[in-house]
Order: sequence, then C-alpha cells, then structure tokens
Amino acid sequence: MILLKGKNTAEKIKSGIARELESLHGTVPAVSLVRVGEKPEDLAYEKSAVKYLEGLGFHVVTRSFPAEITDGEFQNEFLKINRDPSVNGILLFLPLPRTLDSKKITGMTDPDKDLDGIHPVNIAKVFSGDDTGFAPCTAEAVIRILKSENIPVAGKNVTVVGRSMVVGRPLSMLFLRENATVTVCHTKTEDLKAECRRADILVAAAGKAKMLNGDFVKKGAVVIDVGINMGDDGKLCGDVDTDSLEGIASMVTPVPGGVGTVTNAVLAEHLMRAFRKQEKP
Amino acid sequence: MILLKGKNTAEKIKSGIARELESLHGTVPAVSLVRVGEKPEDLAYEKSAVKYLEGLGFHVVTRSFPAEITDGEFQNEFLKINRDPSVNGILLFLPLPRTLDSKKITGMTDPDKDLDGIHPVNIAKVFSGDDTGFAPCTAEAVIRILKSENIPVAGKNVTVVGRSMVVGRPLSMLFLRENATVTVCHTKTEDLKAECRRADILVAAAGKAKMLNGDFVKKGAVVIDVGINMGDDGKLCGDVDTDSLEGIASMVTPVPGGVGTVTNAVLAEHLMRAFRKQEKP
Repeated sequence: MILLKGKNTAEKIKSGIARELESLHGTVPAVSLVRVGEKPEDLAYEKSAVKYLEGLGFHVVTRSFPAEITDGEFQNEFLKINRDPSVNGILLFLPLPRTLDSKKITGMTDPDKDLDGIHPVNIAKVFSGDDTGFAPCTAEAVIRILKSENIPVAGKNVTVVGRSMVVGRPLSMLFLRENATVTVCHTKTEDLKAECRRADILVAAAGKAKMLNGDFVKKGAVVIDVGINMGDDGKLCGDVDTDSLEGIASMVTPVPGGVGTVTNAVLAEHLMRAFRKQEKP
Repeated sequence: MILLKGKNTAEKIKSGIARELESLHGTVPAVSLVRVGEKPEDLAYEKSAVKYLEGLGFHVVTRSFPAEITDGEFQNEFLKINRDPSVNGILLFLPLPRTLDSKKITGMTDPDKDLDGIHPVNIAKVFSGDDTGFAPCTAEAVIRILKSENIPVAGKNVTVVGRSMVVGRPLSMLFLRENATVTVCHTKTEDLKAECRRADILVAAAGKAKMLNGDFVKKGAVVIDVGINMGDDGKLCGDVDTDSLEGIASMVTPVPGGVGTVTNAVLAEHLMRAFRKQEKP
C-alpha cells in the first residue's frame, strides 16, 4: 500500500506560484483572513495559512472580531475589507456565530476575491462544471492530488462519504466534471459498506474519526482521507483507520500530510488567480 | 407494473394553487414567457405553458424576439421585463442562441422572479439543500411525484442517468436533500447497466430515445422517465423502453402523461410563490 503524501503535489503547485510571483517584479498580492471568535480549529487553520502564505511571499493581514460582534457591525467591517482595493483575496472562517446572518455575509463577498468559493456565483459555477470561479480549496485539493499523481478518474466509480458544502457536495461536482461516476453517501445511507466497497476511488469526508476501515474498501482501491479529527489517543487522525487498509487499498492519503498539505497550496494558488482577476487590463 | 401517471400529483398541486388564487380576491399574478427564435421545442413548451397557466387564471404575456437580435438589444429588453413591477415571474427559454451572452443574461434575472431556477443564487440554493429559492421545474416535478405517491426515498439508492443543469445535476441535489444515496451516471460511465441495476429508483434524464430497457432495471424498482424524444415511429417517447419493463419494474412514469404533466403544475406553483415573494409586507 502506497502512502499518497500531499507533499509532491503541493510542491508542484508551489513552484508554479513562485514563478508567477517573480514575474510580478516586486508587486505583492495581499490576502485578508477574517475570523470571528476564537475557535481552536479556526486558530489552527489561520496559523498554518499565515505561515504558508507569508512563506511564499504574499502579504497576509489577519482581521479578527469578537464573537459578540453584532450582525450590523460585522457586515460594515466585512464590506470595508471587501471593497478595499489593496485586498486581493479574502478567506472568511466558517461557520460564523449564529448571531450573524451567514447567508447575507457570504453573499456580500466579492466573487473575484472569494478564495474558498463561498459566494453563490462561485458555488453555481462549481455545480455547473464551470472552472472560471473558485471551488472550496479542500475539495479542489483532492482532485489536484489525483491529477498530479496520474491516477485515472474518468469513468471510474467514485464514492464520496459526506455531503457538506465545504467538501462532499462540491467535490462530487468536481469529480463529475472529470467524468467519474459519482455516488454521494451520508448518515442516512442504508448500506454504507456496500457503497464504499464498489468504489475505485473512495473519499472519506464525514468528519468522524476512523469511521472507515478495511471492510469498507475494495481490493486495489485508492482511498482519499479528507477528515481531520482528534483521536482518542490525543493525536490527529483522519476519517480512515489507515493501518487496517494494509493489503487492501492500493494507495491512501495520510493524515496529517495528505489532503491538508495540498489545501494550503490551492489557497495560495487561488490568491494568485484572484490577484490576476483584479489586474487592470 | 403500475403506470405512474403525473395527473394525480398535478391535480393536487393545481387545487392548492386554485385555493390560493381565490384568496387573492381578484388580483391576478402575471408571468412573462421570454423566447428568442422559433425553435419547435420552445414553441411546443410555450403553447402548453400558456394554455395551462391561463387555464388556472394567471395572466400570461409571451414575449418573443428574432433569433438575429443583438446581445445588447436583448439585454436591454430583458432588463425591462425583469424590472417591470407588473411581471411577477419570468420563464426564459434556454438554451439561447450562441450570439447572446447566456451567462450574463441568466445572471440578470431577478432571483425572486426566476421560475425555472436559472440564476446563480437559486442554483446555489438547490446545491446546498436550501428550499427557499426556485429549483428547475422538471427536477422538482420528479420529487413531487414520488412524494405525492408516497414512494419512500430516504436511504434508497437512486441512480440518475444524465448530468444536465436542467435535470440531472439539480435533481441529484434534490434527492440528496431527501436523504437518498445518489449516483450520477453519464456518457462516460463505464458500466451503465450495473449502475442502473443497483437502483431502487432509476431516473432516466439523458435525452436519448428508449436508451434504457428491462436489462437496466432491478426487479421491483421505480423508474422515472424524464426524457421527451421523437421516436422512429414519429411518436413522442421517453428515454425508457417502457414495454420492456413489464414484470421487472414495480412502477414507471409514462411519456407523455408522466413527469411533463407535473412540470407545468410546478411552474404554476412557482409563479404563485414568486407573487408572494413580491407582495408588500
């Protein structure tokens, strides 16, 4: 069983960005990371994104607001960030506190600065197979790993476990665009094991630690683990019990070091693309 | 094998609309059917929609433009229709001629008047399982037949053949919202027969006359035929060879008289909902 690390794919994307940044002769694209409250997972993602994007040479501004901010106040602030011509890309940490009108706020995002594809225009583009917008970075990272490792997708049976708006749903549409036959499973699926065992490519994106093991995997299948959970042993783990796939799966992405590694690279690439979209012709 | 006609479902929807229209005490919601060119299928749908909506008591205005109209001219005209406060709902026949900027025009539609769900906001809502917008009428008609006939969907295996933006994709998302396990197939699917034979509910929405027969159907499955094609014998037929399902499928929708019958009723219901959205509070 091959451990399908994200590093190679991330490096390829990174070197493309580095070349493009060089060609800008000193101009530095800027991103605004917008966070409301202090959720540990937001702080962890923010820290990793800041390090990665600054490491590449981008200008990163973190904007944080107290969890108690009113809906009106936050909308004002968010609108200012949105309209600021010095901000090329925006990453808003979701979900927002329930006191904020999330639907309205995501709809306010400038579609051309919308690095994680939360605006309806970008969602609709992903849904319709139009690649001129922004897909959610994690969903796109999965496709990028498969492409970069030359794993065939067209015509293959892909089972996606999980139907979130961040991974499951958009990823299903990205797979459809690559001509895979896509099955979407979830908590209400009657025979999850059978659905998973049909898959040439099995994607675990349910957010439940080690919920899939070797019993769910067809001999020779490629397993992509999108989960990031805290295991009982206090260590990070995915949605897949990786050890149990030995001798069954042909490849599996590790957690950490798999999809997550590529997600940051895709985010950086989106920032580069957002900058290009805003360049004066 | 039961022939699952659309009539019962359509009648239920129709009587709900009639009650609601009565409660308006003489106010008559109005719809604008917008057509560019003279494609026979547009003319056929227009004729049937006009008859149906006028029969219910709605005010119907048909607006037709020559296929040669310039992009700028049509956008001007479409904007006027859109902004006209006396127009509560709009049905734009798609696809538009290639000379027109279809993406821009669908994006100009007022989401609250968008009866067939072509605006990105409505597309994104369907994608995310939010039922406050408008889904494409045909896709919604399929779900309505199943619900009205008390055919269980949750947890069932649903295979959708076809991935268009009018039926296949949105319908897959509507099935996901009903907690079905959904598989989307298409021309690049390697073993279409096997994918179809797994389905408790099989939906044919590929637009190819009689492409599915009894070999593609599991014993006892429910088959929904969304296709409307002209057969070799010059008669209307669906994507399913209905006769060949005898003794295999438990139910099948006929063509004509199945999904299409319900589509007009859903269109009328959308017009009623659009009118409500525009009422002053």
